[in-house]
Amino acid sequence: MRDPILACYRFSADAASAETRAQAIAVEQSVEMPVSAIRDRAVLESIVGEVVEVADLGGGRFEARIALASATVGADAGQLLNVLFGNTSLHDDVVLHDMEAPAGLAQTFGGPTVGIGGLRSRLAARGRPITMTNLKPQGLAPGALADLAFALAAGGVDLIKDDHGVADQRFSPFAERVPRIAEAVRKASRRTRAPTRYLPNLTGDLDALRAKTRILRENGLDAALVLPMVVGLPAFQALRRENPDIALVAHPAMAGATRIAPALLMGRLFRLIGADATVFPNAGGRFGVAREECLRLARAAREPWLSLAPTLPIPSGGMTLERVGEMVDDYGIEVGLFLGGSLLAASADLTGSAARFVAAVAEAAKGRGQIAR
Amino acid sequence: MRDPILACYRFSADAASAETRAQAIAVEQSVEMPVSAIRDRAVLESIVGEVVEVADLGGGRFEARIALASATVGADAGQLLNVLFGNTSLHDDVVLHDMEAPAGLAQTFGGPTVGIGGLRSRLAARGRPITMTNLKPQGLAPGALADLAFALAAGGVDLIKDDHGVADQRFSPFAERVPRIAEAVRKASRRTRAPTRYLPNLTGDLDALRAKTRILRENGLDAALVLPMVVGLPAFQALRRENPDIALVAHPAMAGATRIAPALLMGRLFRLIGADATVFPNAGGRFGVAREECLRLARAAREPWLSLAPTLPIPSGGMTLERVGEMVDDYGIEVGLFLGGSLLAASADLTGSAARFVAAVAEAAKGRGQIAR
Repeated sequence: MRDPILACYRFSADAASAETRAQAIAVEQSVEMPVSAIRDRAVLESIVGEVVEVADLGGGRFEARIALASATVGADAGQLLNVLFGNTSLHDDVVLHDMEAPAGLAQTFGGPTVGIGGLRSRLAARGRPITMTNLKPQGLAPGALADLAFALAAGGVDLIKDDHGVADQRFSPFAERVPRIAEAVRKASRRTRAPTRYLPNLTGDLDALRAKTRILRENGLDAALVLPMVVGLPAFQALRRENPDIALVAHPAMAGATRIAPALLMGRLFRLIGADATVFPNAGGRFGVAREECLRLARAAREPWLSLAPTLPIPSGGMTLERVGEMVDDYGIEVGLFLGGSLLAASADLTGSAARFVAAVAEAAKGRGQIAR
Repeated sequence: MRDPILACYRFSADAASAETRAQAIAVEQSVEMPVSAIRDRAVLESIVGEVVEVADLGGGRFEARIALASATVGADAGQLLNVLFGNTSLHDDVVLHDMEAPAGLAQTFGGPTVGIGGLRSRLAARGRPITMTNLKPQGLAPGALADLAFALAAGGVDLIKDDHGVADQRFSPFAERVPRIAEAVRKASRRTRAPTRYLPNLTGDLDALRAKTRILRENGLDAALVLPMVVGLPAFQALRRENPDIALVAHPAMAGATRIAPALLMGRLFRLIGADATVFPNAGGRFGVAREECLRLARAAREPWLSLAPTLPIPSGGMTLERVGEMVDDYGIEVGLFLGGSLLAASADLTGSAARFVAAVAEAAKGRGQIAR
């Protein structure tokens, strides 16, 4: 097999059956039929998945590295997901743990186009983490969201995103909300002289995504939030291809962390298809995530990989001001730090809260290296 | 809250914390911020999720019914998924178990348009299960797939679908494959006088789906296979809306069964957004699925629900000729029966194998009622 994708699966088995189980996954993710019934030599030689290695992880868990043909992926991100995990996602003991990809895959999918460098340059944010907060709750009218955005932007936060639940509902239609919030953030920016960005949440099918991207551009914006697992990877891919100049921040909704390893899905895969930043649930927040897994995700997003630009990791999910120092210890300065609800809870003085967040990040960053762990 | 969606979650907790945990899910899936920080009365009254009931399932598992505002969904199937399970999918102990929906949701999404009735009438298939097989392995050239399709159609099978791995790869481009296979199936149909349908696998982004649907129509076809979790629910929804006359069969790839109950995802949700048939892994096949869960899925697809037409359940995943009788016992005749690899394994006489499958189904159906269990 030429230039295979090496997919790594973890599953439950006993020592006697682990090899057979790995073989079954290799068949399921390639030809999905009895290999003995295949007559075509080209299929046998270059399409049937090959078990490269099976390792005993202990405790009844095994890890198999399986070579899958790049030719079966083509150029569609949906099909990439299908090849990596389509039917095997139906086995409840299997986790798609990691992948190694040939250089051609990076060329096909392209990765981040704005990237960390582009974000830093737009935000004039050097030598420190990028700061982010969001607009919620959903249910608020456009005017209330714009007021919120003004108050937060006046505190100097870099990125202000729609909450991922703020979509295109009747109580706050996209076309009505975006101009008002964009204007509010511009107004605050003129005061702070900080180039704060507002990131609308792009939702719906590809037609809707395109219409919303037009509105985004008409309002002078150059960044957006997208939920790849909700809009679908093919739609995310089209959005990326058509808008190389818009910074796309991926949100983890529906990226349920247990069946595809978070580092692979929210780190490598979202990076491969072009996320400039990736929001993920951090350890010690509302989601039960292990710290080591979070650090692995950040590495997958940032470390040199093929020809792909790095993606900014944004640990999230119930973070507080008190944890800023610890997060800089963990992730270094090449990171986005995100306070959502904990900023909004201080609703009496939102601008003050936001400013304290920005100051705490600047303070924590002093004298730190690029990447800590 | 008016016309709420009642979402049902199962999670791990102890008796003392179950109520708090349910409350946290209600907040996460609605406003995702401290409720105490919300000043807007309309949001508090009609948007914040409400815990309706928490039940102790025993063994440390609890079930919470939570009312979520329909207004937060709007008309986008992606956003429906986001509202039901977006962030909560990141908790590895929570399963989205079921939902009850207000009548308005059925009107918004519309459900099956061809439906079981339309399929039966097109296929002239009355009083028996509908039969299905597929074309694989991927890697075969269009000519080889067309030969396969001819041999299988000559045996009188109702539906012949592309394997879900057969997408639009270089070894078998969609535009080249579909006309050849469609022609082969037509030729066989003239011989058998059975109105066998070929279902191409529609993949890619919405542009690609539309282009492929045009090719499908140009070749006189009126049915297709789609992977909703791979193309994305919004794209599936657009496809449904634009093609009410094309029978859409949903494939379960990436619908990993453990975190959203199969009966909800592949039964109710796929039905709600318009799948005319739903393929799912059956008990006793290659996937470890419990029989009761499969029967529950079939019920969710077929039983009266709001104003929605029923969806044809198609148990699948390693079924064999020997199990036809048992499957008719389990599912009755209002079902699709699917043999894939096991038919192809008998490659010396594919037409004979297919004909024996068709005959076995007809035989098993004799004197059976509509729905068994």
